[in-house]
Amino acid sequence: MPHPNDPALRCFIPVDASSDFPIQNLPYGVFSSKDGLAPRVGVAIGAYVLDLWELEQDCRLDVGELGIFAAPTLNAFMALGPKVWSRTRARISQLLRHDNPELRDNPALRERALVPMAEARLHLPIAVAGYTDFYSSKEHATNVGVMFRGKDHALQPNWLHMPIGYNGRASTVVASGTKVRRPRGQLKPPGAEVPSFGPCKRLDFELEMGVVVGQPSAMGEMLTETQAEDMIFGFVLLNDWSARDIQQWEYVPLGPFQAKAFATSISPWVVTREALQPFRVHGPQQDPTPLPYLRQLQPNNYDLQLEVELRAAQMQEPVRICRTNFKYMYWSSVQQLVHHASSGCAMNVGDLLGSGTISGPGKHERGSLLEISWNGTEPLELVGGVVRTFLEDGDSLSFHGWCQGEGYRVGFGEVEGTMLPAE
Amino acid sequence: MPHPNDPALRCFIPVDASSDFPIQNLPYGVFSSKDGLAPRVGVAIGAYVLDLWELEQDCRLDVGELGIFAAPTLNAFMALGPKVWSRTRARISQLLRHDNPELRDNPALRERALVPMAEARLHLPIAVAGYTDFYSSKEHATNVGVMFRGKDHALQPNWLHMPIGYNGRASTVVASGTKVRRPRGQLKPPGAEVPSFGPCKRLDFELEMGVVVGQPSAMGEMLTETQAEDMIFGFVLLNDWSARDIQQWEYVPLGPFQAKAFATSISPWVVTREALQPFRVHGPQQDPTPLPYLRQLQPNNYDLQLEVELRAAQMQEPVRICRTNFKYMYWSSVQQLVHHASSGCAMNVGDLLGSGTISGPGKHERGSLLEISWNGTEPLELVGGVVRTFLEDGDSLSFHGWCQGEGYRVGFGEVEGTMLPAE
Repeated sequence: MPHPNDPALRCFIPVDASSDFPIQNLPYGVFSSKDGLAPRVGVAIGAYVLDLWELEQDCRLDVGELGIFAAPTLNAFMALGPKVWSRTRARISQLLRHDNPELRDNPALRERALVPMAEARLHLPIAVAGYTDFYSSKEHATNVGVMFRGKDHALQPNWLHMPIGYNGRASTVVASGTKVRRPRGQLKPPGAEVPSFGPCKRLDFELEMGVVVGQPSAMGEMLTETQAEDMIFGFVLLNDWSARDIQQWEYVPLGPFQAKAFATSISPWVVTREALQPFRVHGPQQDPTPLPYLRQLQPNNYDLQLEVELRAAQMQEPVRICRTNFKYMYWSSVQQLVHHASSGCAMNVGDLLGSGTISGPGKHERGSLLEISWNGTEPLELVGGVVRTFLEDGDSLSFHGWCQGEGYRVGFGEVEGTMLPAE
Repeated sequence: MPHPNDPALRCFIPVDASSDFPIQNLPYGVFSSKDGLAPRVGVAIGAYVLDLWELEQDCRLDVGELGIFAAPTLNAFMALGPKVWSRTRARISQLLRHDNPELRDNPALRERALVPMAEARLHLPIAVAGYTDFYSSKEHATNVGVMFRGKDHALQPNWLHMPIGYNGRASTVVASGTKVRRPRGQLKPPGAEVPSFGPCKRLDFELEMGVVVGQPSAMGEMLTETQAEDMIFGFVLLNDWSARDIQQWEYVPLGPFQAKAFATSISPWVVTREALQPFRVHGPQQDPTPLPYLRQLQPNNYDLQLEVELRAAQMQEPVRICRTNFKYMYWSSVQQLVHHASSGCAMNVGDLLGSGTISGPGKHERGSLLEISWNGTEPLELVGGVVRTFLEDGDSLSFHGWCQGEGYRVGFGEVEGTMLPAE
């Protein structure tokens, strides 16, 4: 049987070469449709959602436990572990192949199991156990450092020695399409004698990828590179909405708190680690050599193209404001996970790890408005006289991401969010 | 019917005046017993655990939904809201009164429903949704500030304007009695050129109280003082184990991460906000006056005595190393919760908010070894030549806390943890 990543595989449903969801992808999500059934697990294929619960009920898909795909999150499926993930993906691939009549020639089952994506509502795919956000792009950390501390002290002394990160707020991780209300908070702009409380004036996005942890680790246990890799179920696009002015006043000495607590948006489709396998690359050379517990023998980065588009309320079409690549990350997701567990911190099924803002070396590769507008000093011209330093009410932000194969792409769909005014 | 807080109430079970669990307390916990039944909800009364699931099955206790007390956490009960909390406590109080024959004169039910505490195993009482740790004792923040930045810059500029806090790691909140393994991590002691990885050498405790949030708030919503208060189900003792050397190297600029991620211990009994009502006091004068969203009209502090005891492996008896009071806290739990939701951050049933280390003005009132040993410069003499600056393997730490009424105390039992060597 060909491997589900085989570029030669074809699906019996026509899938455009520009689609994010060819048979080589098969990302998991949670959806509901007009039939009024509760949210359940599906896989994106071309312009359709394949309903895994229907396949399970029809005995076409067996993960050893009935009802796993009737759940409103992927957590129960993820808990089954990497062997089941791999076997299930292979079986789904087989069911969708152009030369397999099982589903192709069963109109009743096709009718039940293939839901046009246009008719599906996509939900938050996982119950987020813990949300952690890293800060692992050297370009991003350097840009921010230069802005606030100058060129000579751009990187903090610890930055090159470990993946710096902090615990975020899991309760406000939301699905793509969720409108995001401008937060209020304490602000103390330069020159103000005392802080005031009001709507954030420097609202920003951060272009990130999120790792979805699919297996737990025990309290008190460290992880090897291989163990950490095996725990990664897949990846999502992640927008770490940030209130720069709230952050600036609150973050010393315990880090960002309310500045990042109001919302984090993720894409509805979790692209599996296995589907990204062909696009693995080595990350940048790490100098100094990381301490032994952080050393990696494998290429743990991904050649994954990323784009950010912004559409103000008065604009017809979005404008691309950033194009970068996940491969630039200095610290890999595997290193982040190894470091996260290094103190004995237990990891759980459903943990979500943000990569940190993904910026590249080029000016057009900056993954936040803070960097694009250089802390507000270089306003960004969109179209028709629309100018931005930070986000304004009504702005819609969307991220896209994909790995480019020969004649196909393994993509993430999008994560979108529109800003509502503060109440 | 007398109020369940009435000091004149008596229980048909004799309860010593020094017991933490008189009829005026009735804290909730989760326990299992020798009968092999799964963990379920109970209330502490004197030297017994009252099995609420037995009472529910016997139709003595009705919260409108059967099975709430057969659960392994308090979350489902908490989700029912403050009116049910209050009604349930009143009913339990009534069942335990010396002049009510219902349970007193029903030997079969007493036999089933009253489990000697010595035979009960106490579990983590809540499923921790999110864990947040504050830093709200002015004395503690000042002590730490003086140590690391000197007297003139002891408090950071933002400290007097808001309750500073950070998101902690919920996955390693553990029940009292859980042994805690010394974490490993990156260390870079003064003078070292590069960091190394190894067992923490400056392991500490932090004496805190934890607020258990029993009601949710919606994303995008702020809270008033009264709304926040109504969401608080109760309080626990909390030990925020801390690796000072890991923290020192990792915390700039995103705050503590692995230094606090390896373990947080809480007491098995959640003392309800209602039981603490008679002990409410005003906190210290707040100067400058907090911004309007943080102003409080009610006394939101508690006169709650706290003790820390340390017993090294070679010691027969523990030695008290701190005696302080929760009333000293500069920012109240209500202010913490209001601030936590101020950006629109959704709060969940089962959220746990650590108060921050509780230190008082006196030298014996310092709630961490960092302060007691003044960053290791003033070693603490215990007994028989045992000296401590930070924790050593085999050390057992226990906290006790209680509010003193006339002739009774409303207490928390203890939270204990023993240090295991790094693996």
